[in-house]
Amino acid sequence: MFEANSDYLKLPGSYLFSTIAKKVAAYSKEHPDAKLVRLGIGDVTQPLPPAVIKALHKAVDEQADPATFRGYAPDLGYEFLRHAIAENSYRALGCDIADDEVFVSDGAKSDSGNIQEIFEKNNIIAVTDPVYPVYVDSNVMAGRTGTYDEKTTRWSDVVYMPCTEENGFCPDFPEKTPDVIYICSPNNPTGMALTKDQLQAWVDYANRNGAVIIFDSAYEAYISEDHIPHSIFECEGSRTCAIEIRSFSKNAGFTGLRLGATIIPKDLKDHNGQALYPLWARRHGTKYNGAPYIVQRAGEACYTNEGKQEIREMVGRYMKNAGFIKDSLAGMGYTVYGGVNSPYIWLKTPNNLTSWEFFDLLLNKANVVGTPGSGFGPSGEHFFRLTSFGTYEASVEAMERIRRL
Amino acid sequence: MFEANSDYLKLPGSYLFSTIAKKVAAYSKEHPDAKLVRLGIGDVTQPLPPAVIKALHKAVDEQADPATFRGYAPDLGYEFLRHAIAENSYRALGCDIADDEVFVSDGAKSDSGNIQEIFEKNNIIAVTDPVYPVYVDSNVMAGRTGTYDEKTTRWSDVVYMPCTEENGFCPDFPEKTPDVIYICSPNNPTGMALTKDQLQAWVDYANRNGAVIIFDSAYEAYISEDHIPHSIFECEGSRTCAIEIRSFSKNAGFTGLRLGATIIPKDLKDHNGQALYPLWARRHGTKYNGAPYIVQRAGEACYTNEGKQEIREMVGRYMKNAGFIKDSLAGMGYTVYGGVNSPYIWLKTPNNLTSWEFFDLLLNKANVVGTPGSGFGPSGEHFFRLTSFGTYEASVEAMERIRRL
Repeated sequence: MFEANSDYLKLPGSYLFSTIAKKVAAYSKEHPDAKLVRLGIGDVTQPLPPAVIKALHKAVDEQADPATFRGYAPDLGYEFLRHAIAENSYRALGCDIADDEVFVSDGAKSDSGNIQEIFEKNNIIAVTDPVYPVYVDSNVMAGRTGTYDEKTTRWSDVVYMPCTEENGFCPDFPEKTPDVIYICSPNNPTGMALTKDQLQAWVDYANRNGAVIIFDSAYEAYISEDHIPHSIFECEGSRTCAIEIRSFSKNAGFTGLRLGATIIPKDLKDHNGQALYPLWARRHGTKYNGAPYIVQRAGEACYTNEGKQEIREMVGRYMKNAGFIKDSLAGMGYTVYGGVNSPYIWLKTPNNLTSWEFFDLLLNKANVVGTPGSGFGPSGEHFFRLTSFGTYEASVEAMERIRRL
Repeated sequence: MFEANSDYLKLPGSYLFSTIAKKVAAYSKEHPDAKLVRLGIGDVTQPLPPAVIKALHKAVDEQADPATFRGYAPDLGYEFLRHAIAENSYRALGCDIADDEVFVSDGAKSDSGNIQEIFEKNNIIAVTDPVYPVYVDSNVMAGRTGTYDEKTTRWSDVVYMPCTEENGFCPDFPEKTPDVIYICSPNNPTGMALTKDQLQAWVDYANRNGAVIIFDSAYEAYISEDHIPHSIFECEGSRTCAIEIRSFSKNAGFTGLRLGATIIPKDLKDHNGQALYPLWARRHGTKYNGAPYIVQRAGEACYTNEGKQEIREMVGRYMKNAGFIKDSLAGMGYTVYGGVNSPYIWLKTPNNLTSWEFFDLLLNKANVVGTPGSGFGPSGEHFFRLTSFGTYEASVEAMERIRRL
């Protein structure tokens, strides 16, 4: 008799953003006239850049003509896109990444969730606390995390690396040595970014301990300071210890278009000499069928001069919001982090409110939707995440309403 | 120290179609002037229907305008598409399927590969032999299949159900009762389709034994006979024992656009009373971020009157190829199956050649690419699959060349 996967059943509650969506839907139903300002989920609001729109229309027309129609894409992505990514996002930074080390996918979330599959079941994962929930949840579903302690909201077999005001939100090396380390920089949710020296220290740590770093660079387009690396492959020795997951969502607005990429150097091998590259290739070949041709052409357009310029402007507009939100909140007396190399603002809740209490206060009294820090892990308690992905007008309106609280 | 997933390492060789692609690439490199006719991989050749193209352009324009831009899609798919699928592909056939039992995805291959995740690790799977490789390979990668016997090319913990000339390619109930049964009808690769009575018998068997059927209906648009069901949900009692995976690839030509759906009735529960529905919803929410908005609009267009008519014509053109290929081969003295309710032709190799010998013969002497039956399982040995997804001209040319062998 068939049985449901018991590892799935260990997951407490639902995915953070689904919970928020349900709370917001319930509030909206009760208050149909309330005009909510949504600075919660990290979704963008600006339309796709003109260069991307042009590429999409062109590719759609190709799909209408038998002479240019394309069916199944190559398993690992079209060469034109793998080349554009490797050339512009890596080799231009001096990173030694070949075209065929780039695996094109339908987004960083899928890759973040699926990447754990290529590791042995008993590998110990380490995550920062707070952390993007997908890293942990996908490992729970794979049976890799042990038992859940409702009181601490922690898993027995996961190594947690607290990111706090005390350590400047930069994780310290953990006491217990993990096998797989998830690092997101610029960070979601804290908005802090590791410096080149800090990231190099992690690369050295991983190489020293036979660990692998899953580096999530989804927010690299928001880096404004020179000493913050855009890729882990800027660090020496990273080809033997790092995988990088990148996104087109937050730079080019592809949240609804779905495109991402994962970079796995061929030199990355476990202590038995087994390379990870062929495992990820096999996963793509067996459980996936490529990103849509038209979307891959849209991705390519991001690397044209026109596309690059439009993306810079788009990111600039969001960063204007980030600066405005940060300064406004600081002016009101809030303690605020992030917002410099990141679209996320990480603020301390006032009056020692819990994160969810502050969420409810903001939803009910200001009709502003944010994300409770505790949803990202226990060290996120008493913190709250706001995003700069709204319009400028919405950001101004939200600050006005928070000021009136 | 991190380790590669040892279950992945158990997989012998590479994915069937990757192997074929490599062989063909090698031949083409050696014979750059050879004009290959590709009737191997099940990829379509006709461009997307005009209704789909129109919907894509319209949706792309919406993504260019801040007033109509859409970011993240709802986890389980847009309501407009879930409704169109449930209404047109299920309720119109008399199947009792609600809109919210439809989960939209990036294609039937992803869903076929991922669906095993929601089952307990020790569940025993049953597959037909021959079979679409993804069902088995994805379970191998999950550590569910035991050890591999190179001689029989079978896994110790998988239940195989031979589909042979003797049983008319309709699987018999296996001796050992499985937990999860994969059935594809109309079948890939044999081209045979289960009748309503045959499928009802499987539904009754599953309900009797507490098994679940994963029903792959990717080829339902090719059904031409009345007694062949288009969905497993046409069978009585199917809501408590079946999951259906459907595709937009083979009817509407979405192989390069990527769209599919999986239907999980809320009544489908394991013997502990645990429903599978929330597990698949959780997987979508955690490891996936929805199909692109523009592609979901393209899917919706398939259900307009214009779209339906265009798809009927497209399928009709491929079925004309199927009939032509089948009749031509039969006329040459080949024993041929399929091609009536299916785009696939399943032929017996001449002179007792092995499937790969015939593959090489066709590639080298006729420059025609097909798929060796043994690649789908040991009972596929001495069989060969041709598809009707080429152009009519290519089908004619291929038959001409085979005639001259």
